[in-house]
Amino acid sequence: MNSSINLHEYIGEKKDKMVNSIPNLSDIKRAHQRISKYIIHTPIITSNSINEMTGAEIFFKCENFQKVGAFKMRGAINAILSHRPEERVNGFATHSSGNHAQAVALASKIANSKAYIVMPNNAPEVKKNAVKEYGAEIIFCEPNEKSRQETCDRVIADTGAIFIPPFNDYKVIAGQATAAKELIEDTPDLDVVMTPVGGGGLSAGTALIVKYIMPNTEVILAEPKNADDAYRSFKSGQLKTVKNPNTIADGLKVSLGEKNFGIIKEHVKDILLVSEDEIINAMRIIWERMKIIIEPSCAVPLAAVIKNKKRFNGKRIGIIITGGNVDLGNLPF
Amino acid sequence: MNSSINLHEYIGEKKDKMVNSIPNLSDIKRAHQRISKYIIHTPIITSNSINEMTGAEIFFKCENFQKVGAFKMRGAINAILSHRPEERVNGFATHSSGNHAQAVALASKIANSKAYIVMPNNAPEVKKNAVKEYGAEIIFCEPNEKSRQETCDRVIADTGAIFIPPFNDYKVIAGQATAAKELIEDTPDLDVVMTPVGGGGLSAGTALIVKYIMPNTEVILAEPKNADDAYRSFKSGQLKTVKNPNTIADGLKVSLGEKNFGIIKEHVKDILLVSEDEIINAMRIIWERMKIIIEPSCAVPLAAVIKNKKRFNGKRIGIIITGGNVDLGNLPF
Repeated sequence: MNSSINLHEYIGEKKDKMVNSIPNLSDIKRAHQRISKYIIHTPIITSNSINEMTGAEIFFKCENFQKVGAFKMRGAINAILSHRPEERVNGFATHSSGNHAQAVALASKIANSKAYIVMPNNAPEVKKNAVKEYGAEIIFCEPNEKSRQETCDRVIADTGAIFIPPFNDYKVIAGQATAAKELIEDTPDLDVVMTPVGGGGLSAGTALIVKYIMPNTEVILAEPKNADDAYRSFKSGQLKTVKNPNTIADGLKVSLGEKNFGIIKEHVKDILLVSEDEIINAMRIIWERMKIIIEPSCAVPLAAVIKNKKRFNGKRIGIIITGGNVDLGNLPF
Repeated sequence: MNSSINLHEYIGEKKDKMVNSIPNLSDIKRAHQRISKYIIHTPIITSNSINEMTGAEIFFKCENFQKVGAFKMRGAINAILSHRPEERVNGFATHSSGNHAQAVALASKIANSKAYIVMPNNAPEVKKNAVKEYGAEIIFCEPNEKSRQETCDRVIADTGAIFIPPFNDYKVIAGQATAAKELIEDTPDLDVVMTPVGGGGLSAGTALIVKYIMPNTEVILAEPKNADDAYRSFKSGQLKTVKNPNTIADGLKVSLGEKNFGIIKEHVKDILLVSEDEIINAMRIIWERMKIIIEPSCAVPLAAVIKNKKRFNGKRIGIIITGGNVDLGNLPF
């Protein structure tokens, strides 16, 4: 199920060029151009009290205000709009019960295509409704990896839909890179850019664009100690996985993708680990001081800054707030 | 305890002019000039999904991102900076356990003055700490009106501090008016401006500035049914009070002030009532759709729009989001 063989550039490239290589600067610029009218150029927010608390100067890029409430919209819409209209007739498919599901649903709607979303049959009602609201068709599977894969393969075979991977895909990576692109264009002279790392779509995209535009700026990732596959991969040089990790940062439970790891090991300065308590503490600080709703995953980089205060003292740090889709009935406070 | 006799203009007026009359347009403009470098020019946020849901076009002025997390900073800093430096030597006093307490504490600090905050001895720890962080001195009273008044009077007699009323004061009203001033200057052609109504500082200030700058725009207030003193006052033409009302909108539990009522009955188009369930529903919609943290009080105007959908259909509505200081451990969801 390698989606890349289906991917063609739709705007501004030779129509038969296969995009199966690491995005270069023009790829990311074209991605930004392609998606800009369908996404929100999200604001950057600072907090005096968090700056005083950390001794750093932090610029939060608020992708919780993005369409579908998460940066995932960027990668999905880039991957989908890269297909020429005549390629979109059979629609798009993915498996996700999270933000990627909503992103593929909305992006398909924008592309006048059908979306097929494979979801575990125990997915929360609110997630199902969000996807349905965008007009997508949900196909339920058993809540395990095998059923998820088989169901998705079957949907694709039956419908001819094109698979849009959540992160292990260069078009998706190029789309996610546009968040950091806006951040570094809007905020001069950052010393560090940080993202949480899960599958690695955002992390890899961020690492690339920072390297291309601001090569002296460090990219540092942050990860829950309880889902430390990216950390172990990075330190060992070998791609590691994690199975059913127990972390509140539910967006970071997936294992790092192969393409993502290739980029991360090349261009990321370091990966820092934080505990569950540190994540919850940082999440509460952002909610209370900044008055914005963020998912637990977003709090992971701030938790790492607080934990490593000395290392970040006096630095100008950009942090990507990845999303704001939380279950208000089930908060950790 | 009439504070107005202590109030002098500090900037741009004859120094001995008593400000004991309804603020005119220049008063509000001067207030804005006086406070602008100490406050945040807060953003205006819109939500496609809330617009679709209501059939209106709503512009939310986000005072939850204001200093101290609420619009109250505007009135407090205006009242305090209206005093010449030599008048500030004995500090400022108020009674509040809410946002006004934090606002007077921070505004006094900015004015290089001492702040004395009278608080009930059962005030939540988090409220006490917030005030202490700004360097204010807390004086505890029994949790009843009589003790609060007596304690505040004693503090003022002992220290010579100047009382800063929470809402029944023309300097405070002029300061609060600057929120709506920014809203209507940043958002052309609003049909309606809405605020929740409690003591009436924000409502009266909003009513005045809208009348001065955009006289064809309606000002409509919204109030919890369970704390309907402003509604009853407005409909009867006589100032009514409410005692210990049972509403989740804790910022709106106080009774309307006399000066505030004088302005509101003259310049407000209507006051709409909403139930507790309607408030909680609207609060949840704002949290989920806009990803911002707001106090229950802020949800009252949106609740009124949803309840009176037909009346507001197709209108461009500005709503002031009053604050974001909520107890995360005690949410209604």
